[in-house]
Amino acid sequence: MSRLDSFIRRLQAQRACLTEAVAHIRDVDGFVLELGLGNGRTYDHLRDRLPGREIYVFDRQVNAHPDCIPAADHLFLGEITTTLPQALAKLGPNAALVHTDVGTGDQKSNERLAATLAPIIRSILRVGGIVISDQALKHPGLSPIALPEGVKPGRYFMNKAV
Amino acid sequence: MSRLDSFIRRLQAQRACLTEAVAHIRDVDGFVLELGLGNGRTYDHLRDRLPGREIYVFDRQVNAHPDCIPAADHLFLGEITTTLPQALAKLGPNAALVHTDVGTGDQKSNERLAATLAPIIRSILRVGGIVISDQALKHPGLSPIALPEGVKPGRYFMNKAV
Repeated sequence: MSRLDSFIRRLQAQRACLTEAVAHIRDVDGFVLELGLGNGRTYDHLRDRLPGREIYVFDRQVNAHPDCIPAADHLFLGEITTTLPQALAKLGPNAALVHTDVGTGDQKSNERLAATLAPIIRSILRVGGIVISDQALKHPGLSPIALPEGVKPGRYFMNKAV
Repeated sequence: MSRLDSFIRRLQAQRACLTEAVAHIRDVDGFVLELGLGNGRTYDHLRDRLPGREIYVFDRQVNAHPDCIPAADHLFLGEITTTLPQALAKLGPNAALVHTDVGTGDQKSNERLAATLAPIIRSILRVGGIVISDQALKHPGLSPIALPEGVKPGRYFMNKAV
């Protein structure tokens, strides 16, 4: 498989996970968190599929397409390990969906970050809320749910707050 | 349609055009030119789908994934308006396939570049060779061919050297 094939497959998997999560949270009120704005494509997808939900976005700095930059009061800039606890304090434990894609090429560092974030993500989610992540999240209050058909295990992870 | 949807559709269209072109040049000997290496995904796709073909790559500078950087003797670095004529002089008019994706956000400048490149691309192609481009190429020696099913007209352009 070429890198073009693999990239298309990864984006399709990401979209399938978002579709699945949107169905899961149909009856769960609450806001949405996008950890890692990047070029803003996922943020744009979330606001398209979840009109009316408040979406808060986190990144070190803004590098997104100009059309995909959230309003300043919905943007948390800085290290996620600092800004996510700030968001919990400010917004309360009222999230219905968290999408996190903050991994880098360094797997050890990704695992450490995932271990740090898992309890904070669980704290900000309502029971029944969903987290989609690019890294495995282990926490007693997070229960893995089945990935959509066609998404290779390990490519993405989906958990429900219990 | 979200930017994620639109990006997936664009990559699928690109892959479909490459597949179509590979079928067209089955009986046309010759090398392959990739104008615009970028992250190297298309280059990787071309070498995967066209094993045994010489592939020459052009870019201002190398920003590709380390696995997708061609050998120095298959890489032309600099302004494409300079390096493409150099390639024609060095390699001769023996290309079977040219893939060009060098457009920027500035449509006027893209059209000027396409007008400059069209005759050089035609000169380097063998009769029966194919050029896939992100801009319309107009030249009496280039004849448009049908886009693969599902590819929106204007998203990509395919021409055969006649």
